[in-house]
Amino acid sequence: MSKPLTTPARGMRDFLPEDVRKRSHVIGVIRDVYERYGFEPLETPAVENIETLLGKYGEEGDRLIFKILKRGEEGRQTGDADLALRYDLTVPLARVVAEYHGALPKFFKRYQIQPVWRADRPQKGRFREFYQCDVDAIGSTSPVIEAEVCGAVSDVLERLGFTDFVIRLNHRELLRALLDVSGVPADLHDSALIAVDKLDKVGRDGVVAELERRGVGAEAATRTLDAFGTSTSPVAQAGASTDVEARLASLLAGHEGGTRALENVRAVIAGAASTSAGAHLRLDPGLARGLSYYTGAIFEIAVPDLAGSLGGGGRYDNLVGMFLGQGVPACGFSLGLERILVVMTERGMFPDDVTASAADVLVTLWNAETVGESLTLARQLRAAGLRVEVYPDADKIGKQLKYASSRHARYAVIAGDDERAKGSVMVKDLESGQQSEVPHGQLAEWFGARRR
Amino acid sequence: MSKPLTTPARGMRDFLPEDVRKRSHVIGVIRDVYERYGFEPLETPAVENIETLLGKYGEEGDRLIFKILKRGEEGRQTGDADLALRYDLTVPLARVVAEYHGALPKFFKRYQIQPVWRADRPQKGRFREFYQCDVDAIGSTSPVIEAEVCGAVSDVLERLGFTDFVIRLNHRELLRALLDVSGVPADLHDSALIAVDKLDKVGRDGVVAELERRGVGAEAATRTLDAFGTSTSPVAQAGASTDVEARLASLLAGHEGGTRALENVRAVIAGAASTSAGAHLRLDPGLARGLSYYTGAIFEIAVPDLAGSLGGGGRYDNLVGMFLGQGVPACGFSLGLERILVVMTERGMFPDDVTASAADVLVTLWNAETVGESLTLARQLRAAGLRVEVYPDADKIGKQLKYASSRHARYAVIAGDDERAKGSVMVKDLESGQQSEVPHGQLAEWFGARRR
Repeated sequence: MSKPLTTPARGMRDFLPEDVRKRSHVIGVIRDVYERYGFEPLETPAVENIETLLGKYGEEGDRLIFKILKRGEEGRQTGDADLALRYDLTVPLARVVAEYHGALPKFFKRYQIQPVWRADRPQKGRFREFYQCDVDAIGSTSPVIEAEVCGAVSDVLERLGFTDFVIRLNHRELLRALLDVSGVPADLHDSALIAVDKLDKVGRDGVVAELERRGVGAEAATRTLDAFGTSTSPVAQAGASTDVEARLASLLAGHEGGTRALENVRAVIAGAASTSAGAHLRLDPGLARGLSYYTGAIFEIAVPDLAGSLGGGGRYDNLVGMFLGQGVPACGFSLGLERILVVMTERGMFPDDVTASAADVLVTLWNAETVGESLTLARQLRAAGLRVEVYPDADKIGKQLKYASSRHARYAVIAGDDERAKGSVMVKDLESGQQSEVPHGQLAEWFGARRR
Repeated sequence: MSKPLTTPARGMRDFLPEDVRKRSHVIGVIRDVYERYGFEPLETPAVENIETLLGKYGEEGDRLIFKILKRGEEGRQTGDADLALRYDLTVPLARVVAEYHGALPKFFKRYQIQPVWRADRPQKGRFREFYQCDVDAIGSTSPVIEAEVCGAVSDVLERLGFTDFVIRLNHRELLRALLDVSGVPADLHDSALIAVDKLDKVGRDGVVAELERRGVGAEAATRTLDAFGTSTSPVAQAGASTDVEARLASLLAGHEGGTRALENVRAVIAGAASTSAGAHLRLDPGLARGLSYYTGAIFEIAVPDLAGSLGGGGRYDNLVGMFLGQGVPACGFSLGLERILVVMTERGMFPDDVTASAADVLVTLWNAETVGESLTLARQLRAAGLRVEVYPDADKIGKQLKYASSRHARYAVIAGDDERAKGSVMVKDLESGQQSEVPHGQLAEWFGARRR
């Protein structure tokens, strides 16, 4: 028999303790900020009925959904799938809003931090299992919602130590209006937006060429590019929203949908100015975003040293209706945990205590007869809030102390025959090498005085 | 088109905010206790290569594994599965220990709190997606390990408010020795244990009958029952270990494996006596436990008002070897989150603040022109650590206050024209009805003085 496979499945990852600690640090900040905004936690199953997911993400999305074989004889014989792994957190939210519609508050503000699965080709920074950290508000069309979700993600990123991020803001109806006034026929809008979305990647000339390939006339293609602006860097021109706004206002004068969209964008910018997002938001007519369910404002977060985005979102007033049969306004933002971790790791942004040791104290084992004493000491220290590891084997004390150092424990407690006779223990500070004899009754107090 | 399905998949559950808060409360206690014992967090992917899981849980287990269809054309045409959903956290741990063997500490103490999936027939309290909270120590055969994992789960249950739980303790080699001395041939041991495991369910006579059906002679069957003890209640006779021990010692006198196992059991009991598990541990020769990978001590937690167990575990010194090709000692305990939640909910064991409101304060919106003021007030209060919801629409103030009450917010902040002119706000205590005018600059301080 060949050696069994011990690697995780392709595109999946094991998170060893230091990885989990970093992830928990970021998740803890996200959760704390979202709760301060009055968002409530929601969790949905990893597995959904396959028809809940299919047809929501476009053809490409459907292809990337992991499908689960029917159980028993039927699955074996037909190869049919009836279940699937969650592809994002937004469609399950829409299902939940439809299912519990009467029981949820008028404004349902929820956050959800869970993994999703996509059968994408794995590559650097792209995995088949990854966490999304979503915040969404259901039930209002007010631009206060957009301002609040932008404020929440800005607070998260600032608390994590990011200063140089830009929240790119655009609007689905503004995009359509710009195509209109550039002379792109309505039936080519969706196709043209796919081309415009590649501006960051292929540049101005590339987009013009692709627009023409997609059936847009040469003049309309050039006008489209002028309308969308020529910036090729998503983080350039932060704070330049006013100029862009003025240019768009003159371009869209007389276009009803475009003027309404621009008014909405102005209201979002004005509201966000009273949140931490104010310093980061930038109107960017070149932002398109792939998912088809957006209907209003759309967002994406850029930092200079990452090709992709740290997160994105927008307003999607029709998605819940696909499940409920009646429209329910909704708007949200999703932060990508792995992208945030990649940048924080590269920039060294984690506080020291995140990657600290697993134990404050190692209690040594003097010999096989003193197990009870070691466990009693550990119990005392744990009750005082310390993280305590007990050395399980009666190895030589030198070996035990070496283990304590390798585990980065700060202190080792030794109860030798002499100390035991006196009802005390020896505490060794493994950083300074200093040893102190401490009576049993004063142990918790001794450590209490030394806790950081 | 028929109305789309909005329920979760069969046997799966949505967790609305109050559910998530209860779950997070329990998980928080478990994590805190496990960390005080020096265990470190590990997370593995939900999806494993199918060959990692198959053949580890017995025939019944294999049948319950959710299998994932191969991607693309191949999956559609062949119906073949190459991946599967995690069935427990122990086999992934064994794979991880084999994969990162050189990089892990000599004693790898890890905890892991993640969902697992089993295609069981759903019924009351049994789900297809459920959380396990595992704690395992790799690398030592010392009974200190068994004492520590029992101490950790006891600390968890006591911190959650459980006082009446019993940790049933037995030993795989003790079971075999008892069958030996009762006259059950070695090749019938596995089969006989399946019968003995049903003592709680079918009673003494039922087990004797089943033993005979499985080929054990009438005399040996009766002697087996006598040897295992006649208690039919797992929570009876707590603290009666000494009598049971004496009876077993005399039964097993001269049986080498049995005597060794009994010595190990004694060492576990002696060690656990120095932990909080001491008051809960009870030697119970009738405990068998289904999973075949156990090799030494085995545990199961019983409470009077639950048919199943709150958790279980034991020593499994050969499982890592199935992946690594060399034996590595291991022992652990798994708490079942849903079982703990069921009992805590039925007994009303959750502290009030676990199910409290999502927001401390609702900031009202005076009119569409004062969005900036509301968001600025919210920002101030959030920076002071309060959880703040902003009412997004310019509805009548009475409607906004009614919403605040329905959300159980304690305070509402109102900035009307009069207050705004004076640079102050009205704060309404929605419990007492009392209103206070507070200047902007003193808001954080005002709430700080009133925080519980």
